[in-house]
Amino acid sequence: MTGRRIPPPRGFPEAEFAHRLERAQAHMHDLGLDALLLTTDVDIRYFSGFLTQFFQSPTRPWFLVVPGQGKPVAVIPAIGAVAMSRTWVEDIRTWPSPHPTDDGISLLAGALSECGSRIGLPMGREAALRMPLNDFARLRQRLDGGAFIDASPIIRSLRLTKSELEIDKIAHACACVGDAFDGAGDLFVVGQSDVEAFRAFKIACLNQGVDDVSYLVGGAGPGGYGDIISPPSGRTIKTGDVLILDTGCTYDGYFCDFDRNFAFGAADDDVRRAYDTVFRATEAGLAAARPGATCADLYQAMHGVMQSAGDVGRLGHGLGMQLTEGPSNTPWDETELRPGMVMTLEPGMGFGDGKVMVHEENIVIRDGEPQLLTRRASPELPVLG
Amino acid sequence: MTGRRIPPPRGFPEAEFAHRLERAQAHMHDLGLDALLLTTDVDIRYFSGFLTQFFQSPTRPWFLVVPGQGKPVAVIPAIGAVAMSRTWVEDIRTWPSPHPTDDGISLLAGALSECGSRIGLPMGREAALRMPLNDFARLRQRLDGGAFIDASPIIRSLRLTKSELEIDKIAHACACVGDAFDGAGDLFVVGQSDVEAFRAFKIACLNQGVDDVSYLVGGAGPGGYGDIISPPSGRTIKTGDVLILDTGCTYDGYFCDFDRNFAFGAADDDVRRAYDTVFRATEAGLAAARPGATCADLYQAMHGVMQSAGDVGRLGHGLGMQLTEGPSNTPWDETELRPGMVMTLEPGMGFGDGKVMVHEENIVIRDGEPQLLTRRASPELPVLG
Repeated sequence: MTGRRIPPPRGFPEAEFAHRLERAQAHMHDLGLDALLLTTDVDIRYFSGFLTQFFQSPTRPWFLVVPGQGKPVAVIPAIGAVAMSRTWVEDIRTWPSPHPTDDGISLLAGALSECGSRIGLPMGREAALRMPLNDFARLRQRLDGGAFIDASPIIRSLRLTKSELEIDKIAHACACVGDAFDGAGDLFVVGQSDVEAFRAFKIACLNQGVDDVSYLVGGAGPGGYGDIISPPSGRTIKTGDVLILDTGCTYDGYFCDFDRNFAFGAADDDVRRAYDTVFRATEAGLAAARPGATCADLYQAMHGVMQSAGDVGRLGHGLGMQLTEGPSNTPWDETELRPGMVMTLEPGMGFGDGKVMVHEENIVIRDGEPQLLTRRASPELPVLG
Repeated sequence: MTGRRIPPPRGFPEAEFAHRLERAQAHMHDLGLDALLLTTDVDIRYFSGFLTQFFQSPTRPWFLVVPGQGKPVAVIPAIGAVAMSRTWVEDIRTWPSPHPTDDGISLLAGALSECGSRIGLPMGREAALRMPLNDFARLRQRLDGGAFIDASPIIRSLRLTKSELEIDKIAHACACVGDAFDGAGDLFVVGQSDVEAFRAFKIACLNQGVDDVSYLVGGAGPGGYGDIISPPSGRTIKTGDVLILDTGCTYDGYFCDFDRNFAFGAADDDVRRAYDTVFRATEAGLAAARPGATCADLYQAMHGVMQSAGDVGRLGHGLGMQLTEGPSNTPWDETELRPGMVMTLEPGMGFGDGKVMVHEENIVIRDGEPQLLTRRASPELPVLG
């Protein structure tokens, strides 16, 4: 039923988490932090291995405390105790949540106080606090004298490069979705509603071996599309349409994120030219993606090819446990590329009357040439039917 | 390819949003609020109709300002302008995001200042601020003299009851997933890995007409399962196993949330008894679900049946745009049931050696008896194969 690829093993050996912890604690030591307070799905999973979709329920807060020394301490709703006990975390403190008056705050304050008073909390770009602000105010009161210091630079620095085991999971998601895209001629047809096209593609990705089609957006329109972040509208696909599907599928909690374009029946010169330009911009990005170059260099390389046409937002980003991660391929992001960084190259440009053309590939920065995790898109706009 | 049901229309007529806005502004007037500041996917969608999976990318903040009078103002990344322009929102202000130094904060401060200085922000139970805390601190500085007041009670009050159009979407998701569960005998077999069982079920739900299988958790084990929030482990299903699948699938941005239990080959007396107890607890919940009763009454009705065995967390919750919403069926939640509330009844209890048994149905509170949105689970534990 699923693709013939052998999926990489699920989870990580404990050494992976020990290594992450060791690196975090070295940074914490440098910054004089006594603890990290983590509240989001991804930050908690990064240090514990705790993988669940249960975070989709906004009801309960979850906390992980990373002390300056020793293993992380989980302060979580009792409903998660069994699942957390299967991770490498040993110190698991629970309370019955939701709670009428104290949703873990006194338990959390206790765990933090054991560590000290300088508490790192991700507060910068890409970060959010996953707990009610009222509860955060209560926590501050409890920790009278405690200081919260922005820990985003630590998180960013750790997650910037991926281990080979992480890359294997991303590569697997990319391969499954690549095979699903290869079946486009059977999946997408004129006369089909875009809702059905999206559905068919989701099923194809699952059949190829991804765990979830967490993200699938796109659009179709005559001679091109104008928007790339919407769900399907129910519109019927017609001859002359150009369809883009942009998907983030997951395997074992790691994302791919790439898109493909298809024309139906015929493609006019404008859209072929836009496709060609953006394809060449991706080539320029691949040529520039070398250790020591910066994200701004990647941006300039791709932007240079599209120049006259103007960009659609940034031209790619980090990729891993989230659909998008820092850094960003923008003129101002001077993050230096290093081996093990997983990045998207995502040149996009406007053309014609409010249309856009976007390409996307996923790569790993390596010594020398980057490694493509996605099978390279066709050099010419594929025409179906 | 998809089920034979006719899906309800996507989106809402403008009157739905006008009604939500009118109710919000009445509450705001009572509390002396000049504006609401909304930052999350769901809060923004509730007042605008803006539906996208793009919020999965943590990179960009999105803001909706609800003024004391007049329509909402969107303060959003430029990449969302086209999609937002298809909603009823007219005043759309954009900036190129991500931005190196000002990710929408000055634009947002301007929009809020036009409204006044008393700003409602959801800060209570179930709420989170979807923007970096550093940016929130910058916003506070910009709004020198402005006050943030907890707006969670407003949001909770508005979303507590659903319109018939909202209920139609939830009902459709329930019907699709119900049909997928009806095919369990073909989907789940001894010798299959739980990963494959989950995958088969996801595909069945898509084929039946849901948009996304956003949430699927569960577990299988000999004579019962011990954890209900985990992804599949790769374990092979064996004769004597009991499998639970608990799913939140979406249609047009609205969730169902229910589970079903299956035994393979045979079921021992312990698990049959637990199933029967929890089935009867659900019956008691259905009997108690009347306007004027409280969530605490629902809890007591279900708990009374399971009494000796102890509960697994709360026994149900609100349902709608999120997998779980307030209120909660707990001993302390005195929220009064009102017609139009969509609730889950979710009795769960421990039994044997660390095993749990959980049932879940989705209902609408109506005058008189509640309306079941899910087809009622079988009164006896279904045995497959």
